[in-house]
Amino acid sequence: MTTKVHEKNIDGKTKLVGLLATPIGHSLSPRMHNLGYTLTGLNYAYLAFEVGNDELEATVKGFKSAGVAGFNVSMPNKMKVLDYLDELDDSAKYARASNTVVNRDGKLIGYNTDGLGYVRNLIEHGVKLEDQKVTLVGSGGAATPIAIQLAQSGIREISIFARNDAFFVQAEENVNYINNEMKEFGVKATVFPLEDKEAFRREIAESAILANGTSLGMKPLDHLSIIDDTLDVLRKDLVVTDVVYNPQKSKLLSQAEEAGAKAINGLGMMLWQGALAFKLFTGVDMPIGQVKEILFGND
Amino acid sequence: MTTKVHEKNIDGKTKLVGLLATPIGHSLSPRMHNLGYTLTGLNYAYLAFEVGNDELEATVKGFKSAGVAGFNVSMPNKMKVLDYLDELDDSAKYARASNTVVNRDGKLIGYNTDGLGYVRNLIEHGVKLEDQKVTLVGSGGAATPIAIQLAQSGIREISIFARNDAFFVQAEENVNYINNEMKEFGVKATVFPLEDKEAFRREIAESAILANGTSLGMKPLDHLSIIDDTLDVLRKDLVVTDVVYNPQKSKLLSQAEEAGAKAINGLGMMLWQGALAFKLFTGVDMPIGQVKEILFGND
Repeated sequence: MTTKVHEKNIDGKTKLVGLLATPIGHSLSPRMHNLGYTLTGLNYAYLAFEVGNDELEATVKGFKSAGVAGFNVSMPNKMKVLDYLDELDDSAKYARASNTVVNRDGKLIGYNTDGLGYVRNLIEHGVKLEDQKVTLVGSGGAATPIAIQLAQSGIREISIFARNDAFFVQAEENVNYINNEMKEFGVKATVFPLEDKEAFRREIAESAILANGTSLGMKPLDHLSIIDDTLDVLRKDLVVTDVVYNPQKSKLLSQAEEAGAKAINGLGMMLWQGALAFKLFTGVDMPIGQVKEILFGND
Repeated sequence: MTTKVHEKNIDGKTKLVGLLATPIGHSLSPRMHNLGYTLTGLNYAYLAFEVGNDELEATVKGFKSAGVAGFNVSMPNKMKVLDYLDELDDSAKYARASNTVVNRDGKLIGYNTDGLGYVRNLIEHGVKLEDQKVTLVGSGGAATPIAIQLAQSGIREISIFARNDAFFVQAEENVNYINNEMKEFGVKATVFPLEDKEAFRREIAESAILANGTSLGMKPLDHLSIIDDTLDVLRKDLVVTDVVYNPQKSKLLSQAEEAGAKAINGLGMMLWQGALAFKLFTGVDMPIGQVKEILFGND
């Protein structure tokens, strides 16, 4: 008699892809990538590692030495990881942050699929970018690649709001970078303190898109929204986007929907940044339609 | 309509266990450990990494930083890895080699389950060790822990044969170690050059067990045996053991069986060293009977 078991589809040839971040408890990336491997029959496994800035250098060098196929990098490591890479793709170079590192023949190459994923998701939702003005809140690891990629995507103007602390300094850097180092794209960037409600109202009134690029609204801050004090900025023809996808409908997006505005959550951006990373890790297209259906249903 | 797929049983909580070795193509460890996880419902994945001495330090430090649960180490890294560990269990300390490293609260602790696995396998096969003499060929990463563990297992005498090169120096060290540093076990150890056929015949004639601890007989050296020139050493009451398990029946074991001697291959040793490592990594017993049945059948 032989026992029949469904063995794990992991063997001595399985290639590792990792996620280096902290905290990693709520990330959907492991399930998305592993689902993609299952659907395409690729022999990869995507595992999450609780790694912060202090553990990052040794982990990156160790994964390189071990021949790990590649890894995603999330908060708080997206900027710091640049120090340990061999080459930067333009997407990471302009964003000065990387979320996707590929081990190509022993060289670590950094990419940034966050900004590309955000823009791709807008396009999938039928949002027009050309000659538009955008108001973006945030200047951290998620907001920065969004700003940089938007600046390359045909918009006319971007107004960036940041809290009057270390984030404001970073927002100023992003604005100067777009105005000076990315001059060829002809985008006018301006920075404002998030505390300036008058400017906030005015800039949104002139914008087609209001984008939250901060973690405000993500659990455990899910009872907060960037417009709690300025609900009157909402209007029917405003597109409101959020990088938050946990909860799927953040307080900001609930407020937007109630006001009849178009609300776009962070799931699509997450899906598209993942699909682009999947292609870089494996050379194979992620079956994004099937993955989306299984992860998020048919809505 | 929702597509139904059998998703990989890997998620954001899956713990990594690795194998660091080169070459790793023929190792059964990934399948054995992953099968153990499946049978016990543990959320671990065991992956193999092509890592040699040059990549070892960075990989070990990186896996430590990434919080990897533990890893096995195989050739050529079993001795070198000691340099990068925080603590050594006696099993690794006496063997001066480690095949199993556990990450316990950020400290790497080295164990050696090779020697223990070898002895446990002999006991499973009903082989008596007490007051016996053993002839062992080899002094490398597999043979050394066997010699050291046999010396702690009640035998009377061990004769170690090694080629007259760097292995002979290591064999001399092992013999001196048993005679001097392990004096309390009262085992007499002697070293001989493998080229001395007269001594080889005499020592085996006085021994209950002839053990091959070298890779001679493993693919691509599977057309060779340590007794090709001395087939007359075989007799019906001799126990012949091999560390080789690929092929499962090495040329040495075929020769032993033809002469009516008891032949024990390296699979059982591999299984037991794995079961002991499994327990150290997970804290849970490997269901060794089921694993053995599925991997090796009922023989």
